[in-house]
Amino acid sequence: MKSLEEKTIAKEQIFSGKVIDLYVEDVELPNGKASKREIVKHPGAVAVLAVTDEGKIIMVKQFRKPLERTIVEIPAGKLEKGEEPEYTALRELEEETGYTAKKLTKITAFYTSPGFADEIVHVFLAEELSVLEEKRELDEDEFVEVMEVTLEDALKLVESREVYDAKTAYAIQYLQLKEALQAQK
Amino acid sequence: MKSLEEKTIAKEQIFSGKVIDLYVEDVELPNGKASKREIVKHPGAVAVLAVTDEGKIIMVKQFRKPLERTIVEIPAGKLEKGEEPEYTALRELEEETGYTAKKLTKITAFYTSPGFADEIVHVFLAEELSVLEEKRELDEDEFVEVMEVTLEDALKLVESREVYDAKTAYAIQYLQLKEALQAQK
Repeated sequence: MKSLEEKTIAKEQIFSGKVIDLYVEDVELPNGKASKREIVKHPGAVAVLAVTDEGKIIMVKQFRKPLERTIVEIPAGKLEKGEEPEYTALRELEEETGYTAKKLTKITAFYTSPGFADEIVHVFLAEELSVLEEKRELDEDEFVEVMEVTLEDALKLVESREVYDAKTAYAIQYLQLKEALQAQK
Repeated sequence: MKSLEEKTIAKEQIFSGKVIDLYVEDVELPNGKASKREIVKHPGAVAVLAVTDEGKIIMVKQFRKPLERTIVEIPAGKLEKGEEPEYTALRELEEETGYTAKKLTKITAFYTSPGFADEIVHVFLAEELSVLEEKRELDEDEFVEVMEVTLEDALKLVESREVYDAKTAYAIQYLQLKEALQAQK
């Protein structure tokens, strides 16, 4: 198999922000021709599928400026420098929902937009939840509303496009699959 | 419920590229304070879960410059101006794999990174496949290698991180769920 790799010839930083950086790279394609790639650098993120003992999913309603609308997501947040994803997952769950978890299991990780960004999302299942006695502070530019929904309700939120993002769609489907596999036994 | 909305106070375009544009917006938060949002504008995309009559999934191996590595994905591509997602889905399937489909069903759509981008991916199931007699041309900066894998193989590719992106992870889990639900009957 011939290599599909693209070699960097030159790299220009266009923007450095508080969340993302933007680069344009001149690359040499596998056939030797030249092209340009637009690349968004992101610190990576975690997402937490938190399920109560009663089987309810903890979700957060949040305004998303890029979409100019409010959507319902599983709790999530950016990795801070040097943080282990497990640590960030628990922190974001606590900050956004007021719950903490005794049991945290890695489900998977995936890149969200490999064509133009390096953002990776680490997805965790959080169980054995309890309410924190002292609420943790949200980031000062974060405003969320916490919801507890059954899997059935979550599927309705997907249907009505109130749930509308990849990590949340994946997490809900994960629970559906888990339930279907258990029913087989 | 009080509104979670963020009002735009000012908007600056930082970059206009061939795939993405970048804006920084000054916003007024729900509590009246000021903040900034970094927003990537993307034309939207389609992804195609193409399954042969024998149950094999058509996948493409592709170098992704933002990740500096080759990953295995379901066929996908950007929406061109004015294109219906169904049309783009069939076009991308044909260009990237040499297959066409008689049956195309919308599975879902989701935003990939609602925190910083407006990219939406429309996901289709393509069935009743046949090989095109005349291959369609790929975009001149696109190089892919076509693979046909069983669901079992696809799950191994997830495990080994050769499949590593949200849309492909979602699509494989979709097939798993479909199979599990059929087994229940």
